[in-house]
Amino acid sequence: MATATLDFWFEFSSTYSYPATMRIDAVAAQAGVAVRLRPFLLGPIFQAQGWGTSPFNLYPAKGRYMWRDLERICADLALPFRRPAVFPQSGLLAARVALAGLQRPSGQAAWVEDFCRAVYRVQFAEGHRIDQPETILDILSELKVNAEQIVAEAHTTEIKDRLRAQTAEAQRLNIFGSPTFITSDAEMFWGNDRLENAFAWAKRTS
Amino acid sequence: MATATLDFWFEFSSTYSYPATMRIDAVAAQAGVAVRLRPFLLGPIFQAQGWGTSPFNLYPAKGRYMWRDLERICADLALPFRRPAVFPQSGLLAARVALAGLQRPSGQAAWVEDFCRAVYRVQFAEGHRIDQPETILDILSELKVNAEQIVAEAHTTEIKDRLRAQTAEAQRLNIFGSPTFITSDAEMFWGNDRLENAFAWAKRTS
Repeated sequence: MATATLDFWFEFSSTYSYPATMRIDAVAAQAGVAVRLRPFLLGPIFQAQGWGTSPFNLYPAKGRYMWRDLERICADLALPFRRPAVFPQSGLLAARVALAGLQRPSGQAAWVEDFCRAVYRVQFAEGHRIDQPETILDILSELKVNAEQIVAEAHTTEIKDRLRAQTAEAQRLNIFGSPTFITSDAEMFWGNDRLENAFAWAKRTS
Repeated sequence: MATATLDFWFEFSSTYSYPATMRIDAVAAQAGVAVRLRPFLLGPIFQAQGWGTSPFNLYPAKGRYMWRDLERICADLALPFRRPAVFPQSGLLAARVALAGLQRPSGQAAWVEDFCRAVYRVQFAEGHRIDQPETILDILSELKVNAEQIVAEAHTTEIKDRLRAQTAEAQRLNIFGSPTFITSDAEMFWGNDRLENAFAWAKRTS
């Protein structure tokens, strides 16, 4: 029997994607399901439905609740949390870097998963700005990879086009938020609180 | 030690409030927490943030996902489910009837909880229209109470004003969706998927 696969679609500026990213590996290992990382941009999807920013900013009561809910979730998971001064922060560069590491001719670079976790951690626990190139360079440097070279790669037309295509694919799949999990039989699960359901489904249908 | 109480705020047209209403009693009994039913109207709250109908209609990708998600949740709970032909259906009369039963000088009427469950069941499992008075009268008749008298009571100015006040209170509490659970120390939990968290919190702080 082939190993089941789950596509994990995520936007780096997304709040609930922080706990999801931090715990997905453990849940995947437990379920025996492989995860395919699919970074994308929510901005164009929000814009297509008339939103100029995050719904958590457009609807303040919902935003206030989300921050408190996220704080509780992180406390339950013993994840550090500090509300960022600026929200949302563009995840464009982070997504391009992640794609550059994911889609190598030789396969996925070893540093990609650590990079993704670090982007969420510095943003939602350490008060750094992921929309500033220095932050992304610092993260890569700490991972002992050639940070300048990877960021240069992230700025190539090829990677920019790939991220555009991946975001267009997310839109075609009717993805409207992050995190979103899609099984190989096209079942969609949205939200950190559906992570376990997504893996249970992926396992059942493998 | 006094029994902990949890306020359960719900709008009768709300989809995710169906599974929440069907399972809240069992969770409450297990936790040893008393539930206070707080029916309210989401319509005025949605209107205040510029929505003329449910966000599930305004944002079709989100709506499509919600129906599938609800179907899966009901299947997991072994709850019957049939997508209604019309959504949302005004919960105005149902909310007035529930309030009439809840706020009696002699205390809560014995039929109120069964009435609430029946309103969700006929709407989301049996294809009936809860915005039609016949449906509400039928539900009450099956509960062996004086249906005509209760509906007449629901139409009094006193009950109309009470529902208006309850909806205004929901808005003051920054409630933006249904179901919403609020503990006695003002901690808010939103959504069927936060039901257990809400009771755990209520129990912990009692």
